[in-house]
Amino acid sequence: MTIDTRQDYLQASLAQVVQLLNRMRLVEDLVHKQNMPRHELVENLVHKQHRNELAKKLDQLHPADVAYILEALPLNDRLLVWDLVKADRDGEILLEVSDAVRETLIESMDREELVAAAEQLDTDELADLAPDLPSQVVYEVMGGLDVKERAQLESVLSYEEDQVGSVMDFDLVKIRADVSLEVVLRYLRRFEELPDHTDKIFVVDEAETLVGVLPLNKLLISDPETEVAEVMARDVVTFLPEDDVGDAAQAFERYDLVSAPVVNLNHTLIGRLTVDDMVDYIREESESEVLSMAGLKEEEDLFASVWDSVRNRWAWLAINLCTAFVASRVIGAFEGAIQNLVALAALMPIVAGIGGNSGNQTITMIVRALAMGQMQLTQAWRLWRKELGVSIINGLVWGGILGVVAWLLYDSLPLGLVMTAAMTLNLMLSATMGVMIPTLMQKFGRDPALGSSVLITACTDSGGFFIFLGLASVFLMR
Amino acid sequence: MTIDTRQDYLQASLAQVVQLLNRMRLVEDLVHKQNMPRHELVENLVHKQHRNELAKKLDQLHPADVAYILEALPLNDRLLVWDLVKADRDGEILLEVSDAVRETLIESMDREELVAAAEQLDTDELADLAPDLPSQVVYEVMGGLDVKERAQLESVLSYEEDQVGSVMDFDLVKIRADVSLEVVLRYLRRFEELPDHTDKIFVVDEAETLVGVLPLNKLLISDPETEVAEVMARDVVTFLPEDDVGDAAQAFERYDLVSAPVVNLNHTLIGRLTVDDMVDYIREESESEVLSMAGLKEEEDLFASVWDSVRNRWAWLAINLCTAFVASRVIGAFEGAIQNLVALAALMPIVAGIGGNSGNQTITMIVRALAMGQMQLTQAWRLWRKELGVSIINGLVWGGILGVVAWLLYDSLPLGLVMTAAMTLNLMLSATMGVMIPTLMQKFGRDPALGSSVLITACTDSGGFFIFLGLASVFLMR
Repeated sequence: MTIDTRQDYLQASLAQVVQLLNRMRLVEDLVHKQNMPRHELVENLVHKQHRNELAKKLDQLHPADVAYILEALPLNDRLLVWDLVKADRDGEILLEVSDAVRETLIESMDREELVAAAEQLDTDELADLAPDLPSQVVYEVMGGLDVKERAQLESVLSYEEDQVGSVMDFDLVKIRADVSLEVVLRYLRRFEELPDHTDKIFVVDEAETLVGVLPLNKLLISDPETEVAEVMARDVVTFLPEDDVGDAAQAFERYDLVSAPVVNLNHTLIGRLTVDDMVDYIREESESEVLSMAGLKEEEDLFASVWDSVRNRWAWLAINLCTAFVASRVIGAFEGAIQNLVALAALMPIVAGIGGNSGNQTITMIVRALAMGQMQLTQAWRLWRKELGVSIINGLVWGGILGVVAWLLYDSLPLGLVMTAAMTLNLMLSATMGVMIPTLMQKFGRDPALGSSVLITACTDSGGFFIFLGLASVFLMR
Repeated sequence: MTIDTRQDYLQASLAQVVQLLNRMRLVEDLVHKQNMPRHELVENLVHKQHRNELAKKLDQLHPADVAYILEALPLNDRLLVWDLVKADRDGEILLEVSDAVRETLIESMDREELVAAAEQLDTDELADLAPDLPSQVVYEVMGGLDVKERAQLESVLSYEEDQVGSVMDFDLVKIRADVSLEVVLRYLRRFEELPDHTDKIFVVDEAETLVGVLPLNKLLISDPETEVAEVMARDVVTFLPEDDVGDAAQAFERYDLVSAPVVNLNHTLIGRLTVDDMVDYIREESESEVLSMAGLKEEEDLFASVWDSVRNRWAWLAINLCTAFVASRVIGAFEGAIQNLVALAALMPIVAGIGGNSGNQTITMIVRALAMGQMQLTQAWRLWRKELGVSIINGLVWGGILGVVAWLLYDSLPLGLVMTAAMTLNLMLSATMGVMIPTLMQKFGRDPALGSSVLITACTDSGGFFIFLGLASVFLMR
């Protein structure tokens, strides 16, 4: 099946699910509207048929596809569909859906259902899910694990969300260095299945210390008589469980890795990282960057209730209102000047607006460069000079044009000159703040993306009004 | 080497490079400043030593790490370092650097250097680089390829940048279905090296039609006597060269793929996709989304010249100025009202600002959902109702608070009421536009992210001023 067909199929499946849901609604409505005593038999018959059809449809789909459908449905439909998913697939699907949707699904399940779902999972999958589960459920599931698994789960759970330890898995193949490849091949045939994303086998000594890796490629092309030690790679990219997941993802990207070993400080092999988790991380990270620049938390579900959305967004709106209030008081301080020359009121948003737009361009670039580790803090100085150059050129060009427009519109050359000067100065302010805000955030260990757009706009608004109205007061009010 | 050590090492290497560059500068300056006739011998001696040291340092680094260092250096330093990189690594490194940096490096090379660099690459790598090379160079390199390679290169180059065909490679291992795994294992041992990211072998018939894939995992765990046909997977995710790369990347993410076959409409195997290209794509895509929301083109190099930056950003600044001018004329139309009640001038940016902030939150969510394929256009209606609900609540709460503030500040209850009403209405406008703009963009086949932030701000500014000043004119000026 080509991916096009597959996507069409997925879209068609979604449409089919929606249609079945609508039909089920229709039957319910009918029974309701006719106000007759719930005619159980009829309703049950048609309903049952639809339900069965829906359940069959869902059964045929890949867990990731069911997750996609759940994400694309509004809450009440989503829960109806979730109810029809076979219980033995609950665990897998919970892993695939987005955080926000997962929360809604988990809320709808009772303790036994959750325990049953969690018990289907591997240790590392369970660890991914555990933070979202009620602690009572986690406790109960842990009771069912053997000693080794429980220790693994506890260790994964002990790391922060952005540490390598929290995403590593334990499903790996280890061999010794002093055996022949023939022995390795025989050993592998004893497995029922190799772990996903096995592109290399880890070579350890008696103390479980990592001494190298044997890529499957090498295993396959080399003479079976060769010893592992002869063909294994010794210069291996390894990770500590305390390392930052973002750094790990960059390393996967930079060195094109599929899997990599996680070791402790004694270089003892304790787990591995795989590229699928890194891809998920990269995707989530870029998402949360986009969202946090606009002052949104990352978890908002597209179909979240109005109330949840309000809660998710109120903080930055409040900050925005405070900064807007400050800008308003800046204008308030110049009410006399505006009364004298009402054109100022009409022109001032232009000065503020261009500063905000240009500042957003600068801050977006800097935030991105910081996130990619391409910019050292020591370079802020040089970048500031460059951005200042850009803003002076833009100020003179666009400020010049708007100055002429203001001159012609209000028949006042001095007003035009003030306009040009104010635009240039506000653009310089926006360049300065655009470099300074994320650099300082980073320096003090904060996320440079967080609300950066709101902050820069605050600076350029208040600053723009102050510069323009201040210049006008000094030069035009005599 | 753990990744931490590796990163420290990379940072240390960068610092070392910068130090050597500075020392070289110092020597040059000294010779210059003392105004003595360029004392060739001394300069050459010290210079040479530093150059050698730098070249040695660069030689030890992974191509991806050299690329990182090149990206982190300002232009003149970058070219100096580039000059010292061994010519036989040029090709690899050009592939690793970002588009903007690659452009600066290619500009600094003459034709022979470029041809030499290009000749080191595989067909698919060459295809990645070709669009950035002068056509004369591409032509010359093509002349050196054999017929099959040239046909491959031409086919890759014939696809658009966002089509699967443009990123596929041809480096793959094919086998027949009717042989035993033992035969496959013997066949693989004849390779000097398997292609990168080989996690499965493609099974084809005599006509090169894809009939299945043999995952290496299966090959390794199964009895060598088994026939390929017995263990191969037949339900394979395949791609057409015309498919969208974004869809392919999502499929890789959803189905946790490492490599996947590309086939034509007859299901003939023509190439394959690998996860490293998909990771690069996901990263680039999310970057360009962030940048294009702020109205930046994706290629801007952090150390681009002031002039290049001005050119990169001017278009959206111009659009922003036009929209700001419209907003200014809206205010201009109400100059009489402002003259009467100058408080309006101070309060109006608050109304516009909260609309812009809230609109940006809405549009960011919608753009994201559209990019992830999580939102169907048919759902716009439902989402609009939800966003409208959010905006009404926010309008009543925050508008109410600001209304009271305005009332107390200017001692006018009617002014406070106008403020509350205007804020609520502008938030409703921002919700409407925040859903409508990206939905319409998508509907008409445009990138919904492009300049969305600038557009929504334009609507909420002009709209906010109009609503607030209009309400004030009607209800306060009697």
